[in-house]
Amino acid sequence: MSKTHSLTIMVLSDSVGGTAGNVVSAAMAQFPDVAYEMKNFPFIQEEDQLYTVLEKANNFKAIVLHTFVDTLLVEIIETYCSEHGIACIDVINPLIREVTAKTNTMPQHKPGANHKLDAKYFDRISALEFAVKYDDGKDPKGFLEADIVILGISRTSKTPLSIYMANQGYKVANLPLMPESRIPDELWKVDTKRLVGLTNEEEMLSNIRRERMISYGMDPETAYSSKERIRREIEFAEDLYKKLNCQIINVSSKSIEETSAIIIDSLNND
Amino acid sequence: MSKTHSLTIMVLSDSVGGTAGNVVSAAMAQFPDVAYEMKNFPFIQEEDQLYTVLEKANNFKAIVLHTFVDTLLVEIIETYCSEHGIACIDVINPLIREVTAKTNTMPQHKPGANHKLDAKYFDRISALEFAVKYDDGKDPKGFLEADIVILGISRTSKTPLSIYMANQGYKVANLPLMPESRIPDELWKVDTKRLVGLTNEEEMLSNIRRERMISYGMDPETAYSSKERIRREIEFAEDLYKKLNCQIINVSSKSIEETSAIIIDSLNND
Repeated sequence: MSKTHSLTIMVLSDSVGGTAGNVVSAAMAQFPDVAYEMKNFPFIQEEDQLYTVLEKANNFKAIVLHTFVDTLLVEIIETYCSEHGIACIDVINPLIREVTAKTNTMPQHKPGANHKLDAKYFDRISALEFAVKYDDGKDPKGFLEADIVILGISRTSKTPLSIYMANQGYKVANLPLMPESRIPDELWKVDTKRLVGLTNEEEMLSNIRRERMISYGMDPETAYSSKERIRREIEFAEDLYKKLNCQIINVSSKSIEETSAIIIDSLNND
Repeated sequence: MSKTHSLTIMVLSDSVGGTAGNVVSAAMAQFPDVAYEMKNFPFIQEEDQLYTVLEKANNFKAIVLHTFVDTLLVEIIETYCSEHGIACIDVINPLIREVTAKTNTMPQHKPGANHKLDAKYFDRISALEFAVKYDDGKDPKGFLEADIVILGISRTSKTPLSIYMANQGYKVANLPLMPESRIPDELWKVDTKRLVGLTNEEEMLSNIRRERMISYGMDPETAYSSKERIRREIEFAEDLYKKLNCQIINVSSKSIEETSAIIIDSLNND
């Protein structure tokens, strides 16, 4: 189906604009046939800058989302949008107002407060470095330090999943499994609750691996992509998961965000 | 200052709940003195599940955020919350309604549509794998394939920044700089617009590096953390940036999200 409508969505922010950008992606996923362009205007902290961008919004007949926390900027954008008939969505102030009402505490109205370089931030940075350092079973010592150890055969998204979870502050190590590989002793010392085994459908893996061979300019019909080989790998992995008594997740139709949410959910409900 | 108020914020979602979780982080950054707990309830797709979680919300006197796209679930949560006096924030339907009005297109009301395993998703997964593969100057070939090449001396957050940008779909390689290191020939072939040089304040680097030595159980007063050494490294890097004629970003008080937004902004406005 061709995308028939065209739409400009503008994200205005006194900081990075990431929060509103995510709202746009989530909402627009419900309109697969609407072509749209998202324009991001970060770091707006002066009235002049804001007016310049609002004129653009008016010209583009855009829908506007904003995450301003400064009272004056919020007032300007609301007044301008209502006077010019621009649809304007305030992403964080509805929650800020509820929290103020509930706790009787005033917000600090400080732009970029979400990007404070505090202990939590540096923990997340360390977790990202950890994930790269202990990716692909590079150093089994990582298994003992990790919050989560991800196991899986080739092409089960171990690396992207590890990194995605690291960005949420978890220290994640991963180990690729092959029938030929020796399982490091450290693995048996990891708390079962911290171990996650990824598996996938034979058919799906075969297709992914054939694609990978093609993208490398190689013959897709290699042992790597043969169904018999894949079946053996899956059996080896599932056998190991049973011995380790760990959580098993079939990632065949799951994004890394979904797999991550399942892992965190089961960690929290333990 | 001690955190005096206590608050439960519940995120309800038919999918991962990441979008609403980001709104919570952004809003709560404005209340540094309010202690709160965020509870995530992902993958709610049945009425029964929803009612169970809503009873919890009532017991906790929680503020509720949701990202439901199913009309029935939205109606249930709104009715329940209004009847029980629960503050309820709908994160994505305000935008969905505006898009419907503007384009005269109905949303598909499909849970998890934001996590579709489409071409864009697999590009992002490839970008994450790319960032790990070409981290730390491991293979200079990556410079020629990358969308962005990040240069910087030790402790300027090259790795976390590369990964963060990869998660947004950019292919990023990075190269650590030391006065002793040979600059790979490939670097001179990279389009200047794609090159970013990171720098930092001498004082800040010295502190970060001393902390790093301490965390390794080593003497903090090493050559690695000495100001003279750091000054030499910064001079070497800034000299190279001038020769390369690339964008220079001082990351001393910037989070990776902020640095990333600056890079993308200047790429887009080129």
